Amino acid sequence: MNPGLLIVLSGPAGVGKGSVIKRAKELTDNLYTSVSATSRKPRPGEIDGVHYFFKTRQQFEAMIRENRLVEWVEYCGNYYGTPKEYVTRELEKGRNIILEIEVEGSMKIKEMFRDAVLCFIVPPSFEELERRLRGRKTEDEETIRRRLDRAREEFRYIPKYDYVILNDTVEEAARRFVAIIRAEQMKTFRNLELIERLTNKE
Amino acid sequence: MNPGLLIVLSGPAGVGKGSVIKRAKELTDNLYTSVSATSRKPRPGEIDGVHYFFKTRQQFEAMIRENRLVEWVEYCGNYYGTPKEYVTRELEKGRNIILEIEVEGSMKIKEMFRDAVLCFIVPPSFEELERRLRGRKTEDEETIRRRLDRAREEFRYIPKYDYVILNDTVEEAARRFVAIIRAEQMKTFRNLELIERLTNKE
Repeated sequence: MNPGLLIVLSGPAGVGKGSVIKRAKELTDNLYTSVSATSRKPRPGEIDGVHYFFKTRQQFEAMIRENRLVEWVEYCGNYYGTPKEYVTRELEKGRNIILEIEVEGSMKIKEMFRDAVLCFIVPPSFEELERRLRGRKTEDEETIRRRLDRAREEFRYIPKYDYVILNDTVEEAARRFVAIIRAEQMKTFRNLELIERLTNKE
Repeated sequence: MNPGLLIVLSGPAGVGKGSVIKRAKELTDNLYTSVSATSRKPRPGEIDGVHYFFKTRQQFEAMIRENRLVEWVEYCGNYYGTPKEYVTRELEKGRNIILEIEVEGSMKIKEMFRDAVLCFIVPPSFEELERRLRGRKTEDEETIRRRLDRAREEFRYIPKYDYVILNDTVEEAARRFVAIIRAEQMKTFRNLELIERLTNKE
């Protein structure tokens, strides 16, 4: 069995990453979102190992020291990160795993997992991104400006990604994303067993 | 506008390349088969520039000398080849062009067109290929044996291709092929204009 794909998905706040992932999961049967570790307290209904791997600050800091995370951030006083062992184990099971992470983390993933597939979701235009952010009506003007500045920074990383996915509509973007996954699974270097089987015929 | 993709499709005789291409063309609206040049005489109904570019032997040999073919072969006393100018012009129009060619020619294409996408169609197994060849009932035993020997040789080139497409059913293989084309069009290096447009926003 071929190992699963490690798929990194980035894109600015408001571009619709969550909706695209949700729809892509409906369109294909082997697509899983990575479970992060966090030092944040579980909220009602959140299950350990499903929504997050819940850790104490001490446990999380030990994971950082022992290099057991592929990437991590501290955000609003809590740690969030991706356990290396979990990712490796899921890939070995043949599962295609999505990591939805920021640009800096993505670069670290690519160093650690050379065969990771890096995808960046873009809006049709910068103006459209602004419109979507304002449309959410959940952020004040200051926050929106900060998010747009951040988007500009993030866009500079696109050339380091393998694929750029246009999100004009969620349906189209999800289909594009699924096409990338299908294509990547056909890369020759991921099918050496199949090739071996055919070439060793006498 | 982005230039079109140059897609090379190879695979052993009997694997079903023609049927896969035919179905893939129905599934997508920007996919064209390259028109070859030949020194063979036109058959009734064949149109110059549609089925082939018909040339005299002298004209064809001049094209070889002047390096105006991306690849060529002599087969049963006639020349067949792909005119470089034609391919370049079609790609500039934004058309995705399929070249259905043999492994040796594919390697030359990759040297000349660095961004060409090389796909190799494989049967589910060697036995299945043999079964399909016999099923055609158009070749004698000797020809079938020669084709199977040739298939073994061709399989050794697979690692030099970008993608390996399993042809279990024509429908599935065509969908795989179309997924590769969609994915390749999203490669960041093919979308520099879009990225430029987003990053230059102040």
